Amino acid sequence: MSKPKRHVFFVSDSTGITASTLGKSLLAQFEDNVELEFTTIAFIQSIEQIEDAVKKINEYAKTSEYRPIIVATLIELEYRHILTKANALVIDIFGQFIQPLELELGLKSSHAIGRTHNYSRGEETLSYYNRIEAINFALQHDDGASIKRYEDAEIILLGVSRSGKTPTCLYLAMNFAVTAANYPLVAEELTEGLPPILRPHRHKLFGLTIAPENLQRIRQQRYPNSSYASLTTCQIEVQKIEALFRQLQVPYINVTHTSIEEISAMILKQTGLKRFFK
Amino acid sequence: MSKPKRHVFFVSDSTGITASTLGKSLLAQFEDNVELEFTTIAFIQSIEQIEDAVKKINEYAKTSEYRPIIVATLIELEYRHILTKANALVIDIFGQFIQPLELELGLKSSHAIGRTHNYSRGEETLSYYNRIEAINFALQHDDGASIKRYEDAEIILLGVSRSGKTPTCLYLAMNFAVTAANYPLVAEELTEGLPPILRPHRHKLFGLTIAPENLQRIRQQRYPNSSYASLTTCQIEVQKIEALFRQLQVPYINVTHTSIEEISAMILKQTGLKRFFK
Repeated sequence: MSKPKRHVFFVSDSTGITASTLGKSLLAQFEDNVELEFTTIAFIQSIEQIEDAVKKINEYAKTSEYRPIIVATLIELEYRHILTKANALVIDIFGQFIQPLELELGLKSSHAIGRTHNYSRGEETLSYYNRIEAINFALQHDDGASIKRYEDAEIILLGVSRSGKTPTCLYLAMNFAVTAANYPLVAEELTEGLPPILRPHRHKLFGLTIAPENLQRIRQQRYPNSSYASLTTCQIEVQKIEALFRQLQVPYINVTHTSIEEISAMILKQTGLKRFFK
Repeated sequence: MSKPKRHVFFVSDSTGITASTLGKSLLAQFEDNVELEFTTIAFIQSIEQIEDAVKKINEYAKTSEYRPIIVATLIELEYRHILTKANALVIDIFGQFIQPLELELGLKSSHAIGRTHNYSRGEETLSYYNRIEAINFALQHDDGASIKRYEDAEIILLGVSRSGKTPTCLYLAMNFAVTAANYPLVAEELTEGLPPILRPHRHKLFGLTIAPENLQRIRQQRYPNSSYASLTTCQIEVQKIEALFRQLQVPYINVTHTSIEEISAMILKQTGLKRFFK
């Protein structure tokens, strides 16, 4: 039996990131039994635009077996009111939570559109520079490309080739302004202990490991049928690097079946590195 | 008068990304009048861990003038129940929205922890590869480093140095698996029309521009007191590149006071590039 198909619209006066992040989290609870399709309608900034959005959603509803689901982040009360005219289940995030916060804080919300991310408007500040600097740092120190400023790194990731070091460094930089470097331990280095260049930074090292079968599939995508991508190579490298991590007491996590978001959050939790907010 | 200080705890059985994204969106509405501090308690996966979290929050509450605010994404009903014992305002996201979704879908939620991001567990699939490939593409095609596969790019960003091209490309890759390249138009190129290498890809070009004063501040951080960072240089470059965008009819946006998230979402909206979901 095929799964019922449900269409989800993320409707926002800003980027739609909050609506889609929350909507996907909620709907992940049902994904074994529903097929989901997503559309984002972002930067709604006038009555006309919200009315257009409702029209579009209602057009869709007419041709569809089930009514759509809307997940909305709209500050303006009037926009939220117009949205209720859609033939859809409306998950109205701000409608639900702004009021209890107003009561708790004893304040009225500013109803300021474009305030839906506090790392945004009006900031030529530390927050922008910090993120950009962290991204530049990750790019310059990717894959051992430069080791000049290892002393400025907050963390140095170790792992075999294709274990996810680069995307993790970039994610940590982009989202948390963490200055992260990574060093690719090549096969020959794995049995020689820690390379001299890393020795002064031992307390910053953090390891990634991965199931050899998955590593093989990832490498296979890149260099099909190479010795690099063979299961034997993957098994040997993973075995050696895990032995090295244990020998050197480098903390490490297994990233098999783990998203970049999860790897990054696990690293922050284990290392106690501060998340960067605002 | 100093603003009241409120501490916000993001409590999650997974990464905490959904809780912090939503929490920060909501609280951004009040940030003119409250000073906010954030702590994430992620990967709660046992009764003991949620009890520890409550204990920690209550300890904090004792020493603080105002009670804390908790934003929680916890699937387990029992964990959510334990959380109500915290001396805090609890914004219980799943508690609020899972039930209306169950009714709408005619399904019970799977109550599966770690399902809070549907781009996660159990996927050696397209979704992981697509993101990683897009990130690699962005790295290889950053700053005109390689122009080999411009035909594979979905978008090519143009802009003066330090206008935000690199972080935007990486963000588009990381979050939406969009293959994005960028090409740095140096000052001399700005008056010579489109460089030959870009001519076949004109339909993929998208421009970023920025207020010269802000560009100056950003460049100043990097190369203080250089001619590159002088206001005059910035003014001339910005003026020329905007003229070029208009002359070539390249769509462009002004990124002054705009976060990486917002720039990326605006580009997706204007170009109609598909967001990548799962």
